[in-house]
Amino acid sequence: MDNTDLQDYSHKRLNILTGEWVLVSPHRAKRPWQGQNEAVSNDARPAYDESCYLCAGNTRINGEVNPKYQDVFVFTNDFAALQKDSKSFSLEDGLLVAESETGICKVVCFSPDHSKSLADMEAKDIQKVVFTWQKEFKELSENPDINYVQIFENKGAVMGCSNPHPHGQIWSQSTLPNEVDKKNTQQLAYYNENNSSILGDYLAQELGKQERIIFENDSFVVLIPFWAVWPFEAMIVPKKQQSNILELNDTEALEYAEAISVLTKAYDKLFNTSFPYSSGIHQAPTDGNENKHWHWHMSFYPPLLRSATVKKFMVGYEMFGSPQRDITAEIAAKMIRELI
Amino acid sequence: MDNTDLQDYSHKRLNILTGEWVLVSPHRAKRPWQGQNEAVSNDARPAYDESCYLCAGNTRINGEVNPKYQDVFVFTNDFAALQKDSKSFSLEDGLLVAESETGICKVVCFSPDHSKSLADMEAKDIQKVVFTWQKEFKELSENPDINYVQIFENKGAVMGCSNPHPHGQIWSQSTLPNEVDKKNTQQLAYYNENNSSILGDYLAQELGKQERIIFENDSFVVLIPFWAVWPFEAMIVPKKQQSNILELNDTEALEYAEAISVLTKAYDKLFNTSFPYSSGIHQAPTDGNENKHWHWHMSFYPPLLRSATVKKFMVGYEMFGSPQRDITAEIAAKMIRELI
Ligand SMILES: O=P(O)(O)O[C@H]1O[C@H](CO)[C@@H](O)[C@H](O)[C@H]1O
Ligand SMILES: O=P(O)(O)O[C@H]1O[C@H](CO)[C@@H](O)[C@H](O)[C@H]1O
Repeated sequence: MDNTDLQDYSHKRLNILTGEWVLVSPHRAKRPWQGQNEAVSNDARPAYDESCYLCAGNTRINGEVNPKYQDVFVFTNDFAALQKDSKSFSLEDGLLVAESETGICKVVCFSPDHSKSLADMEAKDIQKVVFTWQKEFKELSENPDINYVQIFENKGAVMGCSNPHPHGQIWSQSTLPNEVDKKNTQQLAYYNENNSSILGDYLAQELGKQERIIFENDSFVVLIPFWAVWPFEAMIVPKKQQSNILELNDTEALEYAEAISVLTKAYDKLFNTSFPYSSGIHQAPTDGNENKHWHWHMSFYPPLLRSATVKKFMVGYEMFGSPQRDITAEIAAKMIRELI
Repeated sequence: MDNTDLQDYSHKRLNILTGEWVLVSPHRAKRPWQGQNEAVSNDARPAYDESCYLCAGNTRINGEVNPKYQDVFVFTNDFAALQKDSKSFSLEDGLLVAESETGICKVVCFSPDHSKSLADMEAKDIQKVVFTWQKEFKELSENPDINYVQIFENKGAVMGCSNPHPHGQIWSQSTLPNEVDKKNTQQLAYYNENNSSILGDYLAQELGKQERIIFENDSFVVLIPFWAVWPFEAMIVPKKQQSNILELNDTEALEYAEAISVLTKAYDKLFNTSFPYSSGIHQAPTDGNENKHWHWHMSFYPPLLRSATVKKFMVGYEMFGSPQRDITAEIAAKMIRELI
């Protein structure tokens, strides 16, 4: 195979972590766009907004008053999708199969400053967010009813974020969600066969090639995975195999914060807008097992395709077939790398 | 298990066709919405628009002129994601795995009338669309390079549709996309064990319960599947086990058209708007095998949640964990049934 084939012809690439494929159509990047444009709001926000239910000192919908927090503030989601004391039941009525699911959902405010996003924060302030994630993860992982903890952020109105105050969420639950289950299976199979982490081995390959690497420091690599689905999807991976973020020491936590900072700042420069995305950390289940096959990582799924207003729609073919992308991972990596 | 548990407590439901789960949080339906509102355009469109590249007699971007078609018109996609004469190659370089993918992509205009959607068309006109799908499916399935044919429609700007002229697409290719592969595996496993169609057996159960049925005629059932992900997701299933739409006789094609008509008209009434969705037909692979385990069906994935402007965002948790829904399938079925 000629190495340029991947830049010229339709092909599919394997996601080694899920076992699923993405369809890549490089020749299609030039198709004209006559569809929906997204609204952009580049308005500067005030540092404090009295109508914001996440700002320090303000009252939330359920009547609770936020403390006058200085750094990071965590509370239990007022409209949680998962509840701790929900009823336990299971249904297997022929082909109707259901199981009760309990859990705990939290909101994590990254900063009291309403006007900021992670991209506007210093690495040492992002490190405080990382410390908070560690603390919350630890507490939840010690809860015998919680077997998996999903930390994530929805940023931007186009990603369903209903409040621009910088914040993320943590949904934790008793069983493994679909995506985590797939990654668990794939990592375990590889580990059993090779006695090494699939993501660690992949990282070694990528560091050799340097084609999809965006940034690295002593402890972390930021790259566009070979199998990226979203136009500018990226992944932050620790160089050492660690099963979850509790294994980070303080220096590593700062280097992780630096990786987040570098990536989100580059994103904002790409289309000169506060770049929307959903990000999430995939970590080992908190089921009490060692889960040596797990190599935790954080992924960013940003929807924008070619400007602040034109996004990639994952619709028809993508919903019924496979995800599809136009620009290749290599071109996306090059574009972002040039902004660092 | 008390039958009302499913309406009161968080749980997950199994999609028997993919083997994946959906998280259902019925108590969450009342959460306030302060996020992005979608634009609605309820403007009447003209029957002919001189700037529309799908209207009869108009010139497309590549210079071709559309015929003065009367009913349905099909052409090869001018910006196809898959191409027939693309180069064939395969890559297996350590953990980088890719395969070339070839195919044929077509656009199907449902009517020359720019102002209409399937919901505004008569069943006998939709039957002509069904006949066209059959003709195209037949031709593609006879092509030795094509092993799967995906028929779909993206309707509405919010679903990435760049032209409101009523149309759908057909993407056909050499290998099975992810979603089809999952359904192939699940149906085959069940068929091998039970010597019957999983969807046929499921249908029998649903017809007994009548809780999620929206509509039926002699040959088709329209229902909200037990494991529906999108708020008003629905499925049209033939009562007879058929592996693809070529098995429909003319009467059945008309009854299929009626099912589409009834569902799309009810959708439009729900929020008093031209209801956006992506729909798709999952059928047996066209690989020359009998594929006796396949029971074809059509699904509708509409994004709207509680009004013409508030949609469900499948973001953070949904992307990294599992799809999540608030209103239950049973309530959605009841709401739609009342509009028929
Ligand atoms: O082919 P269209 O209508 O230009 O494009 C639309 O449908 C395609 C198939 O689902 C998607 O890949 C595109 O993201 C979407 O905008
Ligand atoms: O929890 P929020 O921010 O109100 O809601 C947002 O994130 C959730 C978790 O990804 C999604 O289920 C919602 O659809 C989305 O609007």
